[in-house]
Amino acid sequence: MAVYTEVGDEALARFLEGYDLGLPLSLKGIAEGVENSNYLLHAERGQYLLTLYEKRVDEADLPFFLGLMEHLAKRGVNCPQPVRARNGAAVGRLAGRPAAIVTFLEGLSARRPTVEHCGEVGEALARMHAAGADFPLKRVNALSIHGWPPLFEAARARADEVIPGLAEETAAQLAALQAIWPKALPAGVIHADLFPDNVFFLGDKLSGLIDFYFACNDFLAYDLGVCLNSWAFEPGGEFNHFKGRAMIAGYQSVRRLAPEEAEALPILARGSALRFMLTRLVDWLNVPPGALVKPKDPREYLEKLRFHTAVKSARDYGL
Amino acid sequence: MAVYTEVGDEALARFLEGYDLGLPLSLKGIAEGVENSNYLLHAERGQYLLTLYEKRVDEADLPFFLGLMEHLAKRGVNCPQPVRARNGAAVGRLAGRPAAIVTFLEGLSARRPTVEHCGEVGEALARMHAAGADFPLKRVNALSIHGWPPLFEAARARADEVIPGLAEETAAQLAALQAIWPKALPAGVIHADLFPDNVFFLGDKLSGLIDFYFACNDFLAYDLGVCLNSWAFEPGGEFNHFKGRAMIAGYQSVRRLAPEEAEALPILARGSALRFMLTRLVDWLNVPPGALVKPKDPREYLEKLRFHTAVKSARDYGL
Repeated sequence: MAVYTEVGDEALARFLEGYDLGLPLSLKGIAEGVENSNYLLHAERGQYLLTLYEKRVDEADLPFFLGLMEHLAKRGVNCPQPVRARNGAAVGRLAGRPAAIVTFLEGLSARRPTVEHCGEVGEALARMHAAGADFPLKRVNALSIHGWPPLFEAARARADEVIPGLAEETAAQLAALQAIWPKALPAGVIHADLFPDNVFFLGDKLSGLIDFYFACNDFLAYDLGVCLNSWAFEPGGEFNHFKGRAMIAGYQSVRRLAPEEAEALPILARGSALRFMLTRLVDWLNVPPGALVKPKDPREYLEKLRFHTAVKSARDYGL
Repeated sequence: MAVYTEVGDEALARFLEGYDLGLPLSLKGIAEGVENSNYLLHAERGQYLLTLYEKRVDEADLPFFLGLMEHLAKRGVNCPQPVRARNGAAVGRLAGRPAAIVTFLEGLSARRPTVEHCGEVGEALARMHAAGADFPLKRVNALSIHGWPPLFEAARARADEVIPGLAEETAAQLAALQAIWPKALPAGVIHADLFPDNVFFLGDKLSGLIDFYFACNDFLAYDLGVCLNSWAFEPGGEFNHFKGRAMIAGYQSVRRLAPEEAEALPILARGSALRFMLTRLVDWLNVPPGALVKPKDPREYLEKLRFHTAVKSARDYGL
């Protein structure tokens, strides 16, 4: 939930003069996206999303993110499409921030994902992987295995304040994952954050994917691990085998997992659980005064991390 | 800035089954309105605002607020119009809250109101007063002179923590205003909160008024006092005589102030400044943990209160 930077009516009017969208008719700050300020913009030409990039997003990454959305949209993935200014630029400046306008996507997030939703997400994820195969830009996954130790160090001293014993357990998990993390698997552009908030449905049909601001290059099957974590667990914490099976089957209906990917899936899902546990832990310990964002509880992902650690093979997920 | 209550996709679909608006296409929590949860709703039939009323709004007042918007809209005031469900009700229940759908109004708030904006607002205020004259429901202004002592008592003990000497100064202001507050003036339905956030413009033309959730019956000229306070001061704190003059002239182009209203204007503007100083003070001292709302500084309205106390007559505002 965010709106960090206010946009004045005059500044908006000047900004829109650079685009072919007509005059501004309405601008509403929306409670969406934790990293950036997002506005729903009505202009004479239609409805758009205006994003101001806040300090957690590196401006140097914007050509990757926006270029990827353009690339995927051209290949049939329904995602927001950057609107270029008259000078051809996808990124401008507004209220002192880098800013971009993208097309508005209809659809609603599934609050309680069903087995059917999970199947649709698996399929859409594989289509995104296929569509991204020839995207020319690269972006390292700063939140993969090499990024976890510095995150852990930022939280280590106070981790036990959140959950007693957490520092020791995390250190052991990190060491274990560093020892077994796959060296080589099919890789490409991954979404890396395809949580239910970032997937839209109209009725039961998936209508679009949003929020590509963690997208990067990494093992494709790692992305499936992220989705298993964020879609296939019940609110009470149990893994739902039917949801896992539907998601993996949906994925494989478009792109078959290689045997080594299937074998690595428990390690990748475990790593993904550690990644979200760590970022949530850091955020939990660093809520700025006056924050508009309520941090998410790291405990949920610690439970998922423990689940994957006990998993014997990808068959436990429904493969 | 608000979105207190989350609305799930399934709950929304069930709620919309009671309306003739078609299926939901999109729902975005918007950062607007401090008292309620507001969502921009796209349905097959068009674009609407969905409001969930939180605990600061008394459910018993909703027929007044929604009935007033309907009444004003029928008389040519451009304001949100309640959309009735198939059973005729303007208020339903969603996510455990009273909820209403109103039409969506295009327009942008003026971040830095100009003299022209002030003229437009004065005129629109008078048109609203005229259009409300035959509205049959009544609602007492809980935040007028009888409501200030309990507000003050809620903040008195800690007022000096915010501004040294504030408790004493406020007590003196309260006593003075109680002695001179007008007994009888032309009265009717007032907006009572027509700040720049609640007025939309398209270009330089006023396009609509929103947020009638403080509307009530009171002296009409008190509403002009609220607007002088919220529109005619510069960010640095000085009263802008040109803005005041334009606003009063705009008002009088539709409805002439009676001599006793003109005479009382400094007292009414002073009372309005005390009202906003007090509510801001109470909010400032009572920020709930995890609040998504940043309280507004009461100091701004203390300065305005002092300004009006020194004013000799309504000519100082530009009458």
